[in-house]
Amino acid sequence: MPTQAQLRVIYADTDAMGIAYYGNYLKWFEIGRSEWFRKTGTSYRELEKDGINLPVVEAHCSYKRSAYYDDLLTISTSFSFAGPARLRFDYEILRGDELIAKGYTVHACVNSEHKVHKPPEYLRKLLESAKNQ
Amino acid sequence: MPTQAQLRVIYADTDAMGIAYYGNYLKWFEIGRSEWFRKTGTSYRELEKDGINLPVVEAHCSYKRSAYYDDLLTISTSFSFAGPARLRFDYEILRGDELIAKGYTVHACVNSEHKVHKPPEYLRKLLESAKNQ
Amino acid sequence: MPTQAQLRVIYADTDAMGIAYYGNYLKWFEIGRSEWFRKTGTSYRELEKDGINLPVVEAHCSYKRSAYYDDLLTISTSFSFAGPARLRFDYEILRGDELIAKGYTVHACVNSEHKVHKPPEYLRKLLESAKNQ
Amino acid sequence: MPTQAQLRVIYADTDAMGIAYYGNYLKWFEIGRSEWFRKTGTSYRELEKDGINLPVVEAHCSYKRSAYYDDLLTISTSFSFAGPARLRFDYEILRGDELIAKGYTVHACVNSEHKVHKPPEYLRKLLESAKNQ
Repeated sequence: MPTQAQLRVIYADTDAMGIAYYGNYLKWFEIGRSEWFRKTGTSYRELEKDGINLPVVEAHCSYKRSAYYDDLLTISTSFSFAGPARLRFDYEILRGDELIAKGYTVHACVNSEHKVHKPPEYLRKLLESAKNQ
Repeated sequence: MPTQAQLRVIYADTDAMGIAYYGNYLKWFEIGRSEWFRKTGTSYRELEKDGINLPVVEAHCSYKRSAYYDDLLTISTSFSFAGPARLRFDYEILRGDELIAKGYTVHACVNSEHKVHKPPEYLRKLLESAKNQ
Repeated sequence: MPTQAQLRVIYADTDAMGIAYYGNYLKWFEIGRSEWFRKTGTSYRELEKDGINLPVVEAHCSYKRSAYYDDLLTISTSFSFAGPARLRFDYEILRGDELIAKGYTVHACVNSEHKVHKPPEYLRKLLESAKNQ
Repeated sequence: MPTQAQLRVIYADTDAMGIAYYGNYLKWFEIGRSEWFRKTGTSYRELEKDGINLPVVEAHCSYKRSAYYDDLLTISTSFSFAGPARLRFDYEILRGDELIAKGYTVHACVNSEHKVHKPPEYLRKLLESAKNQ
């Protein structure tokens, strides 16, 4: 089941075209996946303490409607495996029921020496159960 | 011919993983296309004065190697048409000859009332000649 | 009475020193004063619709303790007049009861032609009553 | 002697008021002091390799005139000691000969365990000679 996170567009997020700057949507994706981890019962900070990092290897965003200063947005985030050592998060950003943007990020799983490896067993189990909810 | 722009990674671009934050690459793409416009003999600010805006409708980035604080990066930018009213910029971000990331942005062409239309004739000619260089 | 707003430090806010980048605190101040306006019964977006803008003319921040990724911070914001056409907001950023930073911003009051003028009567009354709460 | 650095305001630096967002000026200060270190014959990255960090303990900015998209700005940076273990950088941001903003940052000197200490002898000498130029 996708998890939901909310955020309000602040002035710092906007640009001189009067809309949210396209680059800031990747920060909103980060907020979405942070909340996803929290809802699974762990957090990205916990993973880091266990020596796991999930650097982004690919990011994509389709911008459907502009977002404006003070908009209250919902980020809906879902997870899937994109290979044995690749995690993928899909996002929808909505203003009420209007689709503002959709996108995804793909992550490698690395240890603290930045060596790629499959997610450890406990994380794999956690991700599998959260994915199937 | 792709145009080249240079930038130095500053502390503000980095994150606690010790590398450049993935969201900031979209700002670097903006620097790349800004320079591309300048090399064609116009600038994005000139286009805006003519009532033309080029909002991003799609963005994609593949992250190959991490970028670090104080790295001197080159953004190589090239242009193509992606439909009658769609412009596409492709980017490669390099540190020396190491590929750091590659990506693209697709832009709609809108006037100051945010109505979509084909790029005006003079811009189309400019883009065509720059594309073919 | 100061108003309270909460925010969580995201990865995008941090830098390679492992702490929140000092420049981002000014965005957190913005979140604080946004919430202050909301608690007074209006919002900055409402003011803008009435042709009022409050550009920052001065900003100051003292950094007492570092803030880290995933910290839950409270921004405590209070208001005072700093002259006939100057508004001042004071901020304290806390993690629990630990003081992370304190600072202030001073704002001019301008209309949509960017001409400075005293805040209109209704805004002055609103600010006076909120200040005295 | 103050050192000079140049930067161009990009779309990401602007906000919906059509001007550069006030929080981004602290990034521009960072660019200024980075260049100051480079002109003294070292760099902030070199200091970090020697286990020296210079976290910001205070920042101040007075905003005199707005900066706009595509403005070419000069950051003029000078240095002084603000106590036995405190370094201070003063900045002026100019567009041609128009003063856009002025401000300062004060830094503590810490080692890699974040313990405060006076700048090591070689750094003190370097700073003294650069200051007196």
